[in-house]
Amino acid sequence: MTSYRIAVIGGTGPQGKGLGYRFARHGHTVVLGSRAAEKAVPVAEEVTARLDGVADAGVVTGASNLDACADADVVLLAVPYDGHDELVATLPLAGKVVISCVNPLAFDKRGPHGRVVDAGEGSAAESAQRIAPDSSVVGAFHHVSAVTLWGEKDYLEDEDVLVCGDSAEAKAVAIELARSVTSRDGIDAGALRLARQLEPLTAVLISINKRYKAHSGVRISGLAGH
Amino acid sequence: MTSYRIAVIGGTGPQGKGLGYRFARHGHTVVLGSRAAEKAVPVAEEVTARLDGVADAGVVTGASNLDACADADVVLLAVPYDGHDELVATLPLAGKVVISCVNPLAFDKRGPHGRVVDAGEGSAAESAQRIAPDSSVVGAFHHVSAVTLWGEKDYLEDEDVLVCGDSAEAKAVAIELARSVTSRDGIDAGALRLARQLEPLTAVLISINKRYKAHSGVRISGLAGH
Repeated sequence: MTSYRIAVIGGTGPQGKGLGYRFARHGHTVVLGSRAAEKAVPVAEEVTARLDGVADAGVVTGASNLDACADADVVLLAVPYDGHDELVATLPLAGKVVISCVNPLAFDKRGPHGRVVDAGEGSAAESAQRIAPDSSVVGAFHHVSAVTLWGEKDYLEDEDVLVCGDSAEAKAVAIELARSVTSRDGIDAGALRLARQLEPLTAVLISINKRYKAHSGVRISGLAGH
Repeated sequence: MTSYRIAVIGGTGPQGKGLGYRFARHGHTVVLGSRAAEKAVPVAEEVTARLDGVADAGVVTGASNLDACADADVVLLAVPYDGHDELVATLPLAGKVVISCVNPLAFDKRGPHGRVVDAGEGSAAESAQRIAPDSSVVGAFHHVSAVTLWGEKDYLEDEDVLVCGDSAEAKAVAIELARSVTSRDGIDAGALRLARQLEPLTAVLISINKRYKAHSGVRISGLAGH
């Protein structure tokens, strides 16, 4: 297994914290980033405490989002869509694999639905790629719930991580990192623009969660070994 | 179990034929519709031949799309998105439950992706509801592949049928009909506008099918009894 240095932008939010925990539990080095380092440090300590007794766990530290990126091989964008573009523009992402699990969602009295990005011709992941053209952006980890990530199961074996991207090398990194979460390779879902489909699917899962009082996830059937 | 009279519009296409077969196999009466009745009749005969020996199978006949609708309780729209709106406008749908499994997709050298409907603020199912306001439209059965529908398994037990709609009664019909396909109730995915998310997800499955040489489907994890 490759051991990565992973910066989690928005690492104090539930999705970022949960994924950071899973990556470190699987042996990767994780820096949880936040606007201010002093917000990230106690969350990193909380994750570190949860890793107590886990053999070969990676080190988890906290830093500002910018400092978190500095030495990272992989940068996970786990931020709300509001302010996403402005934040991405400030980050030193050139040459890095950038994984976006950002879900542009909207909510009203009829429930959650996908927020329309670029009149339906875009997605958060594509925006990040446009803003950081010298990075390799992939979309992945949109559908794993923060609650199950932070839960007791060793792996979310009933779920799949769908990975889209235009760089085969960057996709391979996310496909491997999915093992930290599900115990299996992520699924290569195709081109980066399919993030237009993957991101708002989270609205469907949230809608299902409300109706069934569940923490639902996605599994792809019909694939050998999955 | 309620036994429905189901018209399949586009019943000679692989998706319509496959779903019609599954519904009839489960005891429902099915009329496969096509532009011309003489195209539908031989396909109905082919499905009937496949049902030979199935206990309590429903009767399958062929008719024009218009005649198929006449006596139906439930109308399944299983047509290509091209020409969809014009066709729906010709159908007598008032008072009926209309189930749309229409997938507005586009393909180019980078693969399949979702076709943008109403600048991202619409879907085929929502278009059908607008064109036929006195019907109750739900979206369902987008993700079951024609190949597995026509295949040898008694039920596609590894897959789920996601149902969206604004009428609880109409959704209940589709949720029950899902048993014909998966052996389990369909999943209530929420409001009709979530068809914007369900329809183009099929592009992701087609992309996965190409890469993995598979016939993939969707399963929702984390729900009791599913």
